[in-house]
Amino acid sequence: MIRVGIMGYGNLGRGIECALKQNSDMELVSVFTRRDPSSVKTLTEGVMVCSVEDAVTMKDKIDIMILCGGSATDLPVQTPEYAKYFNVIDSFDTHARIPEHFDNVDAAAKEAGNIAVISCGWDPGMFSLNRLYANAVLPEGNDYTFWGKGVSQGHSDAIRRIEGVADAKQYTIPVEAALASVRNCENPTLTTREKHIRECFVVAKEGADLARIENEIKTMPNYFADYDTIVHFISQEELDKNHSGIPHGGFVIRTGKTGLNKENNHVIEYSLKLDSNPEFTSSVIVAYARAAYRMKQEGMSGCKTVFDIPPAYLSPLSGAELRKHML
Amino acid sequence: MIRVGIMGYGNLGRGIECALKQNSDMELVSVFTRRDPSSVKTLTEGVMVCSVEDAVTMKDKIDIMILCGGSATDLPVQTPEYAKYFNVIDSFDTHARIPEHFDNVDAAAKEAGNIAVISCGWDPGMFSLNRLYANAVLPEGNDYTFWGKGVSQGHSDAIRRIEGVADAKQYTIPVEAALASVRNCENPTLTTREKHIRECFVVAKEGADLARIENEIKTMPNYFADYDTIVHFISQEELDKNHSGIPHGGFVIRTGKTGLNKENNHVIEYSLKLDSNPEFTSSVIVAYARAAYRMKQEGMSGCKTVFDIPPAYLSPLSGAELRKHML
Repeated sequence: MIRVGIMGYGNLGRGIECALKQNSDMELVSVFTRRDPSSVKTLTEGVMVCSVEDAVTMKDKIDIMILCGGSATDLPVQTPEYAKYFNVIDSFDTHARIPEHFDNVDAAAKEAGNIAVISCGWDPGMFSLNRLYANAVLPEGNDYTFWGKGVSQGHSDAIRRIEGVADAKQYTIPVEAALASVRNCENPTLTTREKHIRECFVVAKEGADLARIENEIKTMPNYFADYDTIVHFISQEELDKNHSGIPHGGFVIRTGKTGLNKENNHVIEYSLKLDSNPEFTSSVIVAYARAAYRMKQEGMSGCKTVFDIPPAYLSPLSGAELRKHML
Repeated sequence: MIRVGIMGYGNLGRGIECALKQNSDMELVSVFTRRDPSSVKTLTEGVMVCSVEDAVTMKDKIDIMILCGGSATDLPVQTPEYAKYFNVIDSFDTHARIPEHFDNVDAAAKEAGNIAVISCGWDPGMFSLNRLYANAVLPEGNDYTFWGKGVSQGHSDAIRRIEGVADAKQYTIPVEAALASVRNCENPTLTTREKHIRECFVVAKEGADLARIENEIKTMPNYFADYDTIVHFISQEELDKNHSGIPHGGFVIRTGKTGLNKENNHVIEYSLKLDSNPEFTSSVIVAYARAAYRMKQEGMSGCKTVFDIPPAYLSPLSGAELRKHML
C-alpha cells in the first residue's frame, strides 16, 4: 500500500480523498490542516487529522504528501519545504512561474533524495502532455487550447467584489465557430474575443443598480473587457439550484501537415468534459502520486513533471498486463 | 544528427522519408530494399538505396533502423533479427501477438545492448497511450475506441478478390448515434453493428452481376456480415478521382465517475482526423525514433513501447524549453 498524506483540506483535498478510495493500492494516512484539527471532519471514517505543524514528525509514516494549497502563495513555499522530508506532488498552475518553481523544488528534492512532481492536473497536466505529444508528432503545425464550458473561480470572485453583487458564477465558453475553423485546418489567428465567451450569472443585492453592475462587469480590464460577455441577473435560489457545480473542461487541438509537398492535413484533438474540476484534477494527481512513489522506489530523485514520467508508471497494472490489454 | 535507415520502401517507408525532412536533427542515410536497388527511386536526391542483404555492413553508420515491413510475416522475423545490430523501431500492429513479439524482441535487444521500440504508430501507439492515461486517471469507467472515417486496406482487398470486381475502396465509419451515447455518459454496450458502418465503392468488370457482387460483399463473414454495409457501384475514373487517398482516424473515449457517491461524470476524448494514414503513422514513428536514440545514449537497452517512454524524449526541445512553452 502507498501511504498518502493530504496537506490542505479544501475542494482539492476532498477530491484527493475521494480519488484515493478508487485506487486500492493507496491509503490515506492523514489530512494536515492549518485549522484546529478537531474542527475538521473528513469524508472518511477514522482518518487522522493533524496540524500542519506536526507533519514532519510523520515523515516515516507517509510515502507521498499531496500538497493541496494555492499556487499564489502556498505552493511556492510548501513544495520546496516539504520536498525535504517527503516525496511530494502539487498542482502549481501559474504557467509563467513554472520554471522558477521547478528549480526551487528540484534543488530541495535532490538534496533530500526525494521525488517531487509539480504542476499536475489537467492544465497544466493532461493538456500539457497532449501539446507535447502532438508537437513532437506534427512538427509543422499550429496549437490551439480552448477552455470550457466551465466555471472560472477567479472571474466569479471578480464579479462578487463589485458593489451591489451578492453572489455570482462565471462560465468560460469556447466559441463554436473558432473550434470549427481550427478543426477544419484553416489555421486561424484568433483574438481573445474570438476564442471564448464569458457568461455570468449574477445575484444582485436588493435595490442595486443592475445596469451599472452589468457595465462594470463588461468593462472590467483583464477579466472581461476583451471578451464578449453575457450577464444574467438571477435569484440566489436559482444560482444555488442550477449553478452550484464546478464543471470544467476544454480542448487541445493541433493541426499539421505532412507529405513531400505538405499536401496532407491532420487534426489531433484532446478534450475533457468534467462535472467536477477539483475531483478530476485530484484523479490525475493520485495517478501521478503512484508514479512518484515508484520512481522513488527505483532510486530516482529530483523534480519531475508529466513530461518526464513514463505513462506505465501511472497504472497499477504491470507492463505485461498493459501490453496485453491496452496497447 | 541522428542517422536513420529505412528498411522497406512502400507507403510507410516513403512516409518516414517525408517525416524525416520535417525533423532537422535527423537524417536519412539509406533505404534498404528487397528489390533490385537500382530499380528504386527515392523521393530525396542523393539517398543511398541498398539491398537488405547489405544492411548489417552499415551497422556503424546508422543510429536507428526503422522497419517498415508488414506485421503478418516481415516484422516477427525482422525486428528481433535487426535488434541484434541496430536500435530498431517497428509498427507491429497485430494486437493479439504483441506480448509474444515483445518477448522475442526484448531478448534480442537486451543481448545486443540495443533499444527496440515496437508497435508504434496511432493504434497501437497514440490510441494506446490515451487508453492508458485515461484508465489511470479514471479507474472506474468505460473505454470505447471507434475507427474512421477511413480506408481499411484489408476490407478493400477482400472486395477486390470477389469475382467480377475490378477495383474497390472500403471506408470504416463510426456510427454517430453510438458516439453521442458514449459522450453522453450512457455507458452503452455496443455490438459490432452499432459501432461502425462499412461503405464500399466498387468498380465492376463489364457485364458482371452487380446484385451478386453486392450480396457477396454484404454477407462476407468476419469482414462485412456483422455490419451495416453500403455498396456503391462507380466507374474506375470516379474511384481514381474521389477515392485515391488513404485517410483514416478515430476516437478513443473513456467515461468515468468520481466523488464520494460517484455523483460526477467525466469524459476524456482523444481523436485523430488524418488525410494520410501512412504519413501520420510515420510521423509518430520518427518522434519515437528520436526517443529510442536518446534512451540508447543513456545506456538503456531492451524492448520498449509507447508506455515505457517519457514524453519529453520525443521532442527536440530541452526539458527547460518544454516546461517553459508547453507545460
